[in-house]
Amino acid sequence: MILQKENMKRFCSADKITCYIITVLIIITIIGAVIIILNATPPPDPPAWRYECQQNRCVKMELNQSNIDTAISLPVCRLFCGENVPVWPKPTETIRLDPSTVRIKKSGINFRRPSTRSVDSLWSAIENRFTNQIEAKVAHTTGLKDEGKNLIIKFSVNESSNYNLESYTDERYKLSLSQTSNEAIAEIKAETIYGARHGLETLSQLIVYDDIRRELQVVAEGEISDSPVYKHRGLLLDTSRNYFSVESLKRLIDAMAIVKLNVFHWHITDSHSFPLVLKSHPDLTKYGAYTPKKVYTPESIRDLVQYARVRGVRVLPEFDAPAHVGEGWQKKDMTACFNKQPWQDYCVEPPCGQLDPTVDGLYDVLEDIYREMYDYFDSPDIFHMGGDEVSTGCWNSSERIQKWMLAKGWKLEEKDFIELWGYFQDNALERFDKVAGRKLPIIMWTSHLTEKPFVDKYLDKSRYIIQIWTTGADPKVQDLLELGYKLIVSNYDALYLDCGFGGWVNDGNNWCSPFIGWQKVYDNRPDKIAGQYPSQILGSEAALWAEQVDEYTLDSRFWPRASALAERLWSNPDTTWREAESRMLMHRERLVENGIGAEALQPEWCLQNENDCPIIKSGA
Amino acid sequence: MILQKENMKRFCSADKITCYIITVLIIITIIGAVIIILNATPPPDPPAWRYECQQNRCVKMELNQSNIDTAISLPVCRLFCGENVPVWPKPTETIRLDPSTVRIKKSGINFRRPSTRSVDSLWSAIENRFTNQIEAKVAHTTGLKDEGKNLIIKFSVNESSNYNLESYTDERYKLSLSQTSNEAIAEIKAETIYGARHGLETLSQLIVYDDIRRELQVVAEGEISDSPVYKHRGLLLDTSRNYFSVESLKRLIDAMAIVKLNVFHWHITDSHSFPLVLKSHPDLTKYGAYTPKKVYTPESIRDLVQYARVRGVRVLPEFDAPAHVGEGWQKKDMTACFNKQPWQDYCVEPPCGQLDPTVDGLYDVLEDIYREMYDYFDSPDIFHMGGDEVSTGCWNSSERIQKWMLAKGWKLEEKDFIELWGYFQDNALERFDKVAGRKLPIIMWTSHLTEKPFVDKYLDKSRYIIQIWTTGADPKVQDLLELGYKLIVSNYDALYLDCGFGGWVNDGNNWCSPFIGWQKVYDNRPDKIAGQYPSQILGSEAALWAEQVDEYTLDSRFWPRASALAERLWSNPDTTWREAESRMLMHRERLVENGIGAEALQPEWCLQNENDCPIIKSGA
Repeated sequence: MILQKENMKRFCSADKITCYIITVLIIITIIGAVIIILNATPPPDPPAWRYECQQNRCVKMELNQSNIDTAISLPVCRLFCGENVPVWPKPTETIRLDPSTVRIKKSGINFRRPSTRSVDSLWSAIENRFTNQIEAKVAHTTGLKDEGKNLIIKFSVNESSNYNLESYTDERYKLSLSQTSNEAIAEIKAETIYGARHGLETLSQLIVYDDIRRELQVVAEGEISDSPVYKHRGLLLDTSRNYFSVESLKRLIDAMAIVKLNVFHWHITDSHSFPLVLKSHPDLTKYGAYTPKKVYTPESIRDLVQYARVRGVRVLPEFDAPAHVGEGWQKKDMTACFNKQPWQDYCVEPPCGQLDPTVDGLYDVLEDIYREMYDYFDSPDIFHMGGDEVSTGCWNSSERIQKWMLAKGWKLEEKDFIELWGYFQDNALERFDKVAGRKLPIIMWTSHLTEKPFVDKYLDKSRYIIQIWTTGADPKVQDLLELGYKLIVSNYDALYLDCGFGGWVNDGNNWCSPFIGWQKVYDNRPDKIAGQYPSQILGSEAALWAEQVDEYTLDSRFWPRASALAERLWSNPDTTWREAESRMLMHRERLVENGIGAEALQPEWCLQNENDCPIIKSGA
Repeated sequence: MILQKENMKRFCSADKITCYIITVLIIITIIGAVIIILNATPPPDPPAWRYECQQNRCVKMELNQSNIDTAISLPVCRLFCGENVPVWPKPTETIRLDPSTVRIKKSGINFRRPSTRSVDSLWSAIENRFTNQIEAKVAHTTGLKDEGKNLIIKFSVNESSNYNLESYTDERYKLSLSQTSNEAIAEIKAETIYGARHGLETLSQLIVYDDIRRELQVVAEGEISDSPVYKHRGLLLDTSRNYFSVESLKRLIDAMAIVKLNVFHWHITDSHSFPLVLKSHPDLTKYGAYTPKKVYTPESIRDLVQYARVRGVRVLPEFDAPAHVGEGWQKKDMTACFNKQPWQDYCVEPPCGQLDPTVDGLYDVLEDIYREMYDYFDSPDIFHMGGDEVSTGCWNSSERIQKWMLAKGWKLEEKDFIELWGYFQDNALERFDKVAGRKLPIIMWTSHLTEKPFVDKYLDKSRYIIQIWTTGADPKVQDLLELGYKLIVSNYDALYLDCGFGGWVNDGNNWCSPFIGWQKVYDNRPDKIAGQYPSQILGSEAALWAEQVDEYTLDSRFWPRASALAERLWSNPDTTWREAESRMLMHRERLVENGIGAEALQPEWCLQNENDCPIIKSGA
């Protein structure tokens, strides 16, 4: 010590300036070190548990110093234990995952996209989404060790494939995982960019955060070939009964992308409000929107359609008519029974309202609406014309309609009003066809018009697809299949996600109670509903009618129940919800990790103690 | 023009420097003006609607240039139209509001607190909360005209009142509104700061944003005297089945404050997880928490208790025993039947687990737990010891317990296990009393122990309050009342807010389905349940057991349904939900405005078209 002081003194006396500089530098270094030490997060507590795969389930075991080197974390155990690969929806063809992982660093993710697409905003957006998903896996962790191999993701798609997302877009992909000494390699082969996107979604689910080693790991070697069973895998949202911000709709589409749902069916208007902004008829929005801010502008719709495309989701617009029309049309004199009371005499819920098919000018307005919608929704290759719940009582309450019908020599009986409806539908379709310039498939809801003996007469089966919303066992479904119609299945007893809450026009519970659990959604098989005609089922949609939901409960109403639909439609497994349960619990956490406020299905204990919760044991 | 040019020329030639400076200044001014104009938000679209009070309801009418000067916005109309003053819960004594408002500026809010409390963090926090609530009213508006009178809020409380928040704290207040030429004045008189806080809450509900004039308005003249019917107005949350972040619990308490609920009953531990951090027994949390981060530290509990106090909410801690114990106790050898399978033989839901009353060391551990809880929860003047769902089958599956009982000369019959339970309860209470140093009221759940003939023998009615969770009509409730017990009402058929979702140990729906609508909560009257003994009802709690909820759905499960409870307990109106409906819809928007993700009850259309939705018309 004394010697050092002596040296210092000598040194300082020899070259005072150097001495002071060095002293200052030393002080700065010490202060810096102290600041770093004070700010450093203490190493986080290790988890108390590790997992062992025993008889095809991951069993919780104590983690301690003697076993920490070989200990396996829950997400890693779940990758390989039993048949239950935690990819949701379950891949349908080859699944081979060799039971080992390799650690990767998130800063080392590299994409090798098809050479012809080196500059392409669609590819970039898809890749960015993947990177964000990986970031989300570690966003709330502390002490991540971001070390390991680079992850190289190589895409190849058919160079001549269509970059538009359409109802017949090829969605197949093949994902191959391998490694070299310093790289983990994921090769994704697909016909289209949308298939490749699905492959990337699967890859992201094979990357897990190991909370014991505090690092990201990916399955080291393996192969998955995958393609969907059904082409039409959708969710319907009604944005008329309550408004949803565009931001919340984007969150919905984010979640759809995770589970490879591909159709966002947007029931944009109804009798309650008209949030759609149309340049040709600003009065519809002015009087129809709940507030001047609760609207969807052309720009916001275009933006959303593009956002969805990046996520492999088509936006299917619906303009529901002639019923379910009301607010917004106040200045047009083209409706009947608007907000007539007592409403239960004229419609199924307040406010009533139907277009008056006898007003000639109506079809010009419809053409304008179709034209703007067709434009903002980016020339969709399929369109939904609604057509549900037309009330004879409503039309029959209008003197103008009665006069028109009588003048035509019709009566005022049920079949005459069906004739009136057919008249409306023919005229509306003609205007839609004029706008589209081609004869696109049109979807209509089941209704009186889709029943025997009317359906053949008014709805050409080569043009119309019927979306059924009666119960799955309703004989009317068989009628339509026998007649040769193609169907989309939305049977309310399994796929109406708004069921089961309190009444809103009365006390008690709402009309389609009880609440539908994910298990029922999962076990609702379109192929069983189809009976002898499975090839006529295009797919299925879960619906969220928004009388009792707005953006604050949007996430929890859809998720994770819509994921059950996604697996039913993509994979159509022969097994039931029981076999999917432990995967579902993992999957729900994945939704939350990605910012989706999904409902909790069970205590977290059930996630951590696989298969210890069901009342009927798996072996029973 | 020519003259001006001439003047300019002459001016410039006279004094060139002044000329250039002025020219530059003019240019800068012009550029500045252009920038300001370009950046200015265009004036927002006016709303399409105004409202008129007709036959006690606010009716939607077109807003246009000819009526805009006298037009009334919806929230202003609702302040004065009919009996339905939009304060929630409805004040119980005087309500006199003269039908006019005065505009105020939010930057002009001034508090005049009691002179002895000029520096006081509790007052400051209460005032800040109010200011934030007013800010929230205009947070999403554009073009606010922040002009008008200053709002002066004068408090007076009893100078000798207790600043602790206790189960018998006086909550009365009187709010008087008046104005001078440049001030709106709100005087709040109360016994205690907590009463004054309630008055401030009411005041904030009499301040509305007028979307026609784009300004804040307050009721100009009026008086409200108010006090609660029931002292105990609570919500129970279980944080063991799933974990809730402290942030989400604060949001819960924020919402409770809005509706003057005053007890947050915290069911902090259960058999599923033990998130409570105890210095005396760190192993309970280490093995009991779901993850090392999903815990409640002493600091976070103290912080939450203080946060609640600012909002007039007491935190009532529950340590549930001897059943509902499991995870966390792995290293203690003090439990029976932990995670025994098939669980349905030993308990009501997985994982099973009960304390073993025969282990002597158990009571030392309980004393430690009570001591730390009593400390962190700020010496509460009431404590909850749980005591529900003890399973004889569980205790009877333990050889150690059997031996101990037989050695005492007991049998292994139902009544012997009740005796064992009584033994546990006596010992546990003795330890709790030792910790508290005084004999506090203890709450216990209804169970076999609270039934005849056991309840008298084991639970002294001068010490124990019974919280009933059977149905409201269960004769056991009358038994307890006849015996003289004080009750807290949480009948599951109206107040278990977790009912009605999917099953979680099976498919179908959960045990207490269907979902309970707000109407049922509202119409559940503790005084009717009490029959001849209304004075023995301390109040009521709605419960959220968290098997199927975590922080992502916390808001929507409680709100707005818990508000229905709040009005039932504060106001106990003679009317039913039907009369409250239009106020409830306004109130739900208020919750959302304050950051609470409350469920939508109806289409927004029903809010904007008062009383047009119910199927039974008000006059019917």
